[in-house]
Amino acid sequence: MVKIIMHGCCGHMGQVISDLVEKDANAEIVAGIDVTDKGNTSYQVFTDIHECKTEADVLIDFSSAKAADALLDYCVERNLPVVLCTTGLSEEQLAKVEETAKKIPVLKSANMSLGINTLMKLIQDAAKVLATAGFDMEIVEKHHRLKLDAPSGTALALADSLNEAMDNQYHYVYDRSQRRQQRDDKEIGISAVRGGTIVGEHEVIFAGTDEVIEFKHTAYSKAIFGKGAIEAAKFLAGKPAGRYDMADVIEG
Amino acid sequence: MVKIIMHGCCGHMGQVISDLVEKDANAEIVAGIDVTDKGNTSYQVFTDIHECKTEADVLIDFSSAKAADALLDYCVERNLPVVLCTTGLSEEQLAKVEETAKKIPVLKSANMSLGINTLMKLIQDAAKVLATAGFDMEIVEKHHRLKLDAPSGTALALADSLNEAMDNQYHYVYDRSQRRQQRDDKEIGISAVRGGTIVGEHEVIFAGTDEVIEFKHTAYSKAIFGKGAIEAAKFLAGKPAGRYDMADVIEG
Amino acid sequence: MVKIIMHGCCGHMGQVISDLVEKDANAEIVAGIDVTDKGNTSYQVFTDIHECKTEADVLIDFSSAKAADALLDYCVERNLPVVLCTTGLSEEQLAKVEETAKKIPVLKSANMSLGINTLMKLIQDAAKVLATAGFDMEIVEKHHRLKLDAPSGTALALADSLNEAMDNQYHYVYDRSQRRQQRDDKEIGISAVRGGTIVGEHEVIFAGTDEVIEFKHTAYSKAIFGKGAIEAAKFLAGKPAGRYDMADVIEG
Amino acid sequence: MVKIIMHGCCGHMGQVISDLVEKDANAEIVAGIDVTDKGNTSYQVFTDIHECKTEADVLIDFSSAKAADALLDYCVERNLPVVLCTTGLSEEQLAKVEETAKKIPVLKSANMSLGINTLMKLIQDAAKVLATAGFDMEIVEKHHRLKLDAPSGTALALADSLNEAMDNQYHYVYDRSQRRQQRDDKEIGISAVRGGTIVGEHEVIFAGTDEVIEFKHTAYSKAIFGKGAIEAAKFLAGKPAGRYDMADVIEG
Repeated sequence: MVKIIMHGCCGHMGQVISDLVEKDANAEIVAGIDVTDKGNTSYQVFTDIHECKTEADVLIDFSSAKAADALLDYCVERNLPVVLCTTGLSEEQLAKVEETAKKIPVLKSANMSLGINTLMKLIQDAAKVLATAGFDMEIVEKHHRLKLDAPSGTALALADSLNEAMDNQYHYVYDRSQRRQQRDDKEIGISAVRGGTIVGEHEVIFAGTDEVIEFKHTAYSKAIFGKGAIEAAKFLAGKPAGRYDMADVIEG
Repeated sequence: MVKIIMHGCCGHMGQVISDLVEKDANAEIVAGIDVTDKGNTSYQVFTDIHECKTEADVLIDFSSAKAADALLDYCVERNLPVVLCTTGLSEEQLAKVEETAKKIPVLKSANMSLGINTLMKLIQDAAKVLATAGFDMEIVEKHHRLKLDAPSGTALALADSLNEAMDNQYHYVYDRSQRRQQRDDKEIGISAVRGGTIVGEHEVIFAGTDEVIEFKHTAYSKAIFGKGAIEAAKFLAGKPAGRYDMADVIEG
Repeated sequence: MVKIIMHGCCGHMGQVISDLVEKDANAEIVAGIDVTDKGNTSYQVFTDIHECKTEADVLIDFSSAKAADALLDYCVERNLPVVLCTTGLSEEQLAKVEETAKKIPVLKSANMSLGINTLMKLIQDAAKVLATAGFDMEIVEKHHRLKLDAPSGTALALADSLNEAMDNQYHYVYDRSQRRQQRDDKEIGISAVRGGTIVGEHEVIFAGTDEVIEFKHTAYSKAIFGKGAIEAAKFLAGKPAGRYDMADVIEG
Repeated sequence: MVKIIMHGCCGHMGQVISDLVEKDANAEIVAGIDVTDKGNTSYQVFTDIHECKTEADVLIDFSSAKAADALLDYCVERNLPVVLCTTGLSEEQLAKVEETAKKIPVLKSANMSLGINTLMKLIQDAAKVLATAGFDMEIVEKHHRLKLDAPSGTALALADSLNEAMDNQYHYVYDRSQRRQQRDDKEIGISAVRGGTIVGEHEVIFAGTDEVIEFKHTAYSKAIFGKGAIEAAKFLAGKPAGRYDMADVIEG
């Protein structure tokens, strides 16, 4: 039974994770930390991180960038492995994450879902065969109407995976309407569709001569990110200090 | 049996149409016209349009813009209905098409396939219900790596169909990477994917709260444009002078 | 402001509808009816239907078949239009629904979502053009791993729509593995995919010579059925006695 | 420059391969073999296999099962590597293939396309992660209206790949309409759609909790099988005796 401290326990993802852990026979949330205790948890909540001394194997963080520095210090002090799901960290904070990983196990990924991370690996294998054989690579992502950024961070991470597999020879194209020319061999077109409440859909397309291969991931709810965080926590408990990501969780 | 004169008979689409008509019990090509006779037809070919006096019910044109003026004059002289599939006509030529349509039946459409034209009508009905109910509209098109323009003429025609159904209140967006904001209620995002030898794929997406409806057309070969032209020819034979398009063919 | 009585207010769909109505400026739930008051509503709940005398414009029912008889009697007594979303009614009950519709407005549909019902109409128009032109029609539906029946009731309703548009000349095929022969011109293949937690996906395919048109509906949550019920309630309030369905709501 | 003898050179696939090789700088057809010389090749054609003594590196076979025995003997005699694309071999012939592979290099695969064979490998990696994590596996294939068998041989090969990756614990289900029960954890549903002229589409679906991953291959023409055969020929030339398949070609 892996004992988890939930950092950001009263927020939306904290609640999602709490609900998922309750149905999980191999994990347990032993304490929560949040700026205010909304009373929506079944475990003790600490509003001051330093007061939480509950024994635990790992900490999951789904809070905000401004809480990250104190959190990393706390985890180092307690020698507590940390699954870091907060996004939007500054350059300084990202550097601090790397420093922290020299002392304790730290897991951080662009996307926490098992599905996307499995895809991330497979498209690299696909690229090595198909792009080498002359297939063109394209990405289409679809998200809800409220999303501010485009393309999505996950779409860019997928593009980076493809590019990395091909020795970073590719560049990305987001708009073809302002030119009148054939696509370049070394371009990855990335299109962003926005509408309704679409949770997140990512499609990686390999288009060759008379055949097309598509890899598509569809998210139906944000619970998949919580589920991935829990799997990451189970994996990270007991590991030596170091920088980990979801690919390590998948490889087991 | 509809008797057809094939204008541009030795070109790629001329050949496609010739092959299709051979298997069609209700149509027959009685003569061809082209700048040079490549000897790849089973019927007589005239390299000078004015020498072709073969009796016919209708003419199908799949040639080039520079031949259009002489062609329209020829059809008026002979009082011959014309299915005009040549693209890239100048403003002057388009005006001449309208003038011509006052004297003889002229059929011209952005896309000759039965499927796309059926879709064009259906998405208007869909927009009136769904866009009115708050669904967002988006278009994704996919074409081969050699295509110069983006988005495709057909994607724009689909967008115009949607827009027309909604009193032209919408504007089109081709790139979301250069801004950081929510999509507008009245925008239609149009994305263009390019790769391999994809003949043509068009997807119209209506994204609402917790549900998405997609209309997708996939072309497997250019034969569908030839097939549409033949259906158009059968429809047009014997009609009164006027401007027709594929929607009229579908409505019968 | 349409005043609604929610029958089955404490169940899952009752709660979904209550949440949706709270955000709707043009509708209000004025009272609830359920066998037990779970205390999860913001309005008064009656456990005995006959005690509910709250003034209202329409009643939405999402309860169980065994409550249907008393419900229909109650609505007739009070001259209250009823949106009947309960499924699994017996033959006798269905007959009673028709009788009831002679006295008060009754709305009942195979699927309550706006999207599916819009699709239902559009595929009929599509069939008349495309199936008549020789396109083959197929349906693929996908649902979660727990669903007992296959194909889904909605897939069968879609097939019936197609068939009705073609003068009921078609038959349905659910399995092709036990025969070795070409598909029949007049068959509609219906395939059922089951897995994970897929809420519901329906795809209607028109496959012709070198072109394919697909109509696809994806549900992301059951809220769409609640939303459809609310729209139906708004539509039905003030209508004359009669049998209505979602197609009437769409036509307005 | 790999020198190829084309066995079955005057048939449809023989012609497709001849056209492709003409545009290939690294391959050349030096002679053809077929029962009758249709005069549609640019190289010498032998109607008696034993008269063909042209020097070559490899032979590609796209003929018929009844020619297979003589062909295998011929290749052994000449110590000529053989890419065997003919399907429908008898049990005896399949045994003879295995015997032959002890003497010369023999390559044989269920599907010759690069895309399908790449997919075949990737879905095994996906299954090991996703099916192990509880994702359900399903396959949907789509083919033209004339196809006699269902599901396709390629769909079955894909299912076998999935099953093999999971220690062959799975069984296949082709029809769910005759039962009323939840899907089994260890079943792979395989659905076959038939219509129009669809060349071949295969979709492998992994459906989990709130996320779905799909791998889809679309063939636009049979040229992809010819292209795969040419790549296989290049690979096989100069290899030691043994049994090879397209997975070896991909691994290089």
